[in-house]
Amino acid sequence: MKRPSVAVLLSGCGYLDGSEIHEATLTLWAIHKHGADFQCYAPDIDQHHVVNHLNGHEMSERRNVLIESARIARGKIQDLAGFQAAAHDALVLPGGFGAAKNLSSFAFDGADCTVNTDVAKAILSMANLKKPIGALCIAPAALARILPGINVTIGQDRGTAEHLEKMGAHHTAATHGEIVIDREHRVVSAPCYMLDARVDQIGEGADKLIGALLEMVG
Amino acid sequence: MKRPSVAVLLSGCGYLDGSEIHEATLTLWAIHKHGADFQCYAPDIDQHHVVNHLNGHEMSERRNVLIESARIARGKIQDLAGFQAAAHDALVLPGGFGAAKNLSSFAFDGADCTVNTDVAKAILSMANLKKPIGALCIAPAALARILPGINVTIGQDRGTAEHLEKMGAHHTAATHGEIVIDREHRVVSAPCYMLDARVDQIGEGADKLIGALLEMVG
Repeated sequence: MKRPSVAVLLSGCGYLDGSEIHEATLTLWAIHKHGADFQCYAPDIDQHHVVNHLNGHEMSERRNVLIESARIARGKIQDLAGFQAAAHDALVLPGGFGAAKNLSSFAFDGADCTVNTDVAKAILSMANLKKPIGALCIAPAALARILPGINVTIGQDRGTAEHLEKMGAHHTAATHGEIVIDREHRVVSAPCYMLDARVDQIGEGADKLIGALLEMVG
Repeated sequence: MKRPSVAVLLSGCGYLDGSEIHEATLTLWAIHKHGADFQCYAPDIDQHHVVNHLNGHEMSERRNVLIESARIARGKIQDLAGFQAAAHDALVLPGGFGAAKNLSSFAFDGADCTVNTDVAKAILSMANLKKPIGALCIAPAALARILPGINVTIGQDRGTAEHLEKMGAHHTAATHGEIVIDREHRVVSAPCYMLDARVDQIGEGADKLIGALLEMVG
């Protein structure tokens, strides 16, 4: 039997300027744990900026989202420009500021954010084929821009939730161990590091989200 | 009851020039899963080099091991120069080429390798206090240089195992789901990505290694 194929959309490598590493890794772990396969993707663009994760200051260098994401994917990653929805059964977006700085401009523009063209295309093409989409942490913000009316969670933060609601999304507060499933739009979300979490709680969130996603694949 | 404290020694962020990201993340996950706490450390030195993980080529830039490791640690990391064995119950070294390029010179010098002074000090000071040490993937090579006579695994690769034996270590071949425990020297090792592995198998290896390590802590 062919294993389901889950596309994982990365946004760099490190939570302050790219994908949150624990969320991304535990998403890949959960996909394998549930007997599915993954293919990682990232856009071939410069990061919005590079942040020193030791002191939080911006660094005066440039890094490429696809090349840095390849660190998490161990080199097995493809340019998002070539994404084909037909090749995959589901799509997942781990969190980290990369989702709100590189994949979209949500970190800067809130409800007025734009989404990278290839990211928007990938999300829309999956939704058009009724294939399920998962989003961790802050990543639901990019979905909210593209798929109006979805019901998602970004945890408990009221300010962030209001931005999502301004974009037409419904926000459901969630805490550790909880995921939010929108069966109509086939979207699953989990708060992860939008809450103050231990690493095993991130694992639990990713495990539940991937389980619900693969259940929708059938 | 105070949770056991496990020191985690990182070597950068990405398996070709730093810590293997899945091994490092799943080590942190396993520590929390077993009810312990962690503190990450890395040496404040330049990486041996920077490798583009998309194509495997060297890049003409410099990165700092402590600053890049901070991406995996989400900023909660300390300079290894300040490491105090008394503050921790166990020490773990995840794998990745960083352990053999930045923490030691094993990738270049094999059995004639040297180990970074602060890395050697941290390992020796834990061993002197009879505190257990864990090592994943290729990281046992650094231990073998500092603690002669230890029994460890780096998986199945005979060539690499011979280098360890030349340094005075005993090598025990191991496969997925297996760890090697040296009760005399209080060292636990797991092959992880020294084998062709799925991500959930890395989780299983890290889980068993951390379980055995914390059992030694008592």
